[in-house]
Amino acid sequence: MNKETDTTTDVRNVVFVGSGVAGLSAAVYAARADLEPLVLEGPEPGGQLTLTTDIENYLGFPEGVGGMELIQNGKDQAERFGAEFTHGTVENVTLEERPFELELSNGDTLQTRALIVASGASARWVGAENEDELMGYGLSTCATCDGAFHRGDDVLVIGGGDSAMEEALFLAKFADSVTIVHRREELRASEIMADRARDNEAIEFRWNTELEALQGSQEEGITGATLVSHPEGYPLEKTANDPDVMLETIDVGGVFYAIGHTPNTEFLEGTAVDRDKSGYLHTRTDNDGRTTTKTTVEGVFAAGDVADPHYQQAITAAGTGSMAALDAEAYLEALKREEEIALEMPL
Amino acid sequence: MNKETDTTTDVRNVVFVGSGVAGLSAAVYAARADLEPLVLEGPEPGGQLTLTTDIENYLGFPEGVGGMELIQNGKDQAERFGAEFTHGTVENVTLEERPFELELSNGDTLQTRALIVASGASARWVGAENEDELMGYGLSTCATCDGAFHRGDDVLVIGGGDSAMEEALFLAKFADSVTIVHRREELRASEIMADRARDNEAIEFRWNTELEALQGSQEEGITGATLVSHPEGYPLEKTANDPDVMLETIDVGGVFYAIGHTPNTEFLEGTAVDRDKSGYLHTRTDNDGRTTTKTTVEGVFAAGDVADPHYQQAITAAGTGSMAALDAEAYLEALKREEEIALEMPL
Repeated sequence: MNKETDTTTDVRNVVFVGSGVAGLSAAVYAARADLEPLVLEGPEPGGQLTLTTDIENYLGFPEGVGGMELIQNGKDQAERFGAEFTHGTVENVTLEERPFELELSNGDTLQTRALIVASGASARWVGAENEDELMGYGLSTCATCDGAFHRGDDVLVIGGGDSAMEEALFLAKFADSVTIVHRREELRASEIMADRARDNEAIEFRWNTELEALQGSQEEGITGATLVSHPEGYPLEKTANDPDVMLETIDVGGVFYAIGHTPNTEFLEGTAVDRDKSGYLHTRTDNDGRTTTKTTVEGVFAAGDVADPHYQQAITAAGTGSMAALDAEAYLEALKREEEIALEMPL
Repeated sequence: MNKETDTTTDVRNVVFVGSGVAGLSAAVYAARADLEPLVLEGPEPGGQLTLTTDIENYLGFPEGVGGMELIQNGKDQAERFGAEFTHGTVENVTLEERPFELELSNGDTLQTRALIVASGASARWVGAENEDELMGYGLSTCATCDGAFHRGDDVLVIGGGDSAMEEALFLAKFADSVTIVHRREELRASEIMADRARDNEAIEFRWNTELEALQGSQEEGITGATLVSHPEGYPLEKTANDPDVMLETIDVGGVFYAIGHTPNTEFLEGTAVDRDKSGYLHTRTDNDGRTTTKTTVEGVFAAGDVADPHYQQAITAAGTGSMAALDAEAYLEALKREEEIALEMPL
């Protein structure tokens, strides 16, 4: 779609919600297709990848690549072809009329023909006592961001998956000791990551244990954590009078959450865009049964973790990003042809 | 799966058919999961990407990356984590029994618990007279490989999609003139690529035209081409006595085919692996309706262009490669648990 055919210049061709790896890959493709895409960078610009140090499994970088570096590379790449970036969090969307309308939290309104949702999934919180008060004051969901503040500290990592292992390994460079607190006796992490954590002398494990409360203040940071354990696991699900439930408060200087993610799709509540019970978007298959990035609303596409509760890899998000841009491009071309045909029709 | 638990050491955990971007991405993931993957490099090692010069839309490389460079990077990356590569083309597979058995064209036989098909899709031929004799002698499906042999020549590119534009643009660096021969009046290529080709002074177009025959020999190469045209397009479909059919033989020094691809799935003929009418593999969705890389045979997974007739992008192939490795890993873990349970069962 060229500028010349764009009668209402304040209507965008395509807007991307999210500037993580999926949004960036989509932006590269859409920009190269001359769609002049606008990328909305939300509250976590660059997405989950900015919370990772080294990425070893993104094909093309034999020595690995930094998360921030890959995101910056991707942004440079998208901008090189003409993608535009702006800060903005979508508060509300109107998808019943064309063009779509987006209301941003700063009060701005945007109109767009196509919408690509690449808003990702954000780190989940445990629900421990005082976590609201202490988040950012010794409590963190991002070891990469905050690890360096904990030199010489004893810290906890809550979780048992790959990201918990990654966070623990990263923190072990700074902290005196890192304790992985896991509610079961078995890790969900991959063998390679679990082995690496086990082989690190600074890392130990607390099995069948959960975090119940945090001690500290915004002035002095975290000073302690109350842990609860039960020999059968999942201690917080046990009743208080279970004699096997053990409570212990220990001194710690930092706590890191690594217990998974929640998709950022609240702004689609009340729309016809179909989500699963966790909030992840559903995408449709085409007539031939092949995967697409189309959601249940025509003109709205989904890319990256926001539509992928399972794999959530950088390289898969980049892949579905390019698919979403190609799907949006085809949609806009069909729309243009429809408009041209409508103009040619006698009144 | 560790070596210690591997009772039959001559059975592989996972074998990849194909060493293009999908196979490499899968190999990186499988190797990091300690699955000791074996990658079979077929007749076109590195796949279609090796036929491309600069890739501008693979996220992470703001200045673009060479096709060969990306493939070499990916191979280095997979080998760094322990993936093994060997040359071998699969002639036949037996998927009815476990482990699966692969017969290679050199007579070797391989046994594997899981199989990832990443054999891609290969360039299609036009069907012009003498093409069998002249392929590789002035006729080519790869401008990147053979363009430099045509300095000062007049060359033809057959096709109307993005790859035809790419080939033409590349050839324009060497050839005196490049003529894009297209059977219709409208290009299938994206706007950006079509504009680039149109803006290049060395490139011209022959609309509604097809290639009927090639002149030349293996000694002197291609000397001429017979073109057929019809004002309504698709001239080869018209009857010979149609007065609007025009035949013309012109002097050319090289011809490049860029008319699409055929999936390399002949070796799966007669198996229960489901393919569409073009030969592309079907993958299944999970119980929750989400995309997987599982084929209709348990333990056989598909990644990259071989299961993607539509997008066929480097970044999407890398994405589905990682998904296939994760799916295979989960399959092998379930298999191991089944075997352990079977061993514990009383006779």
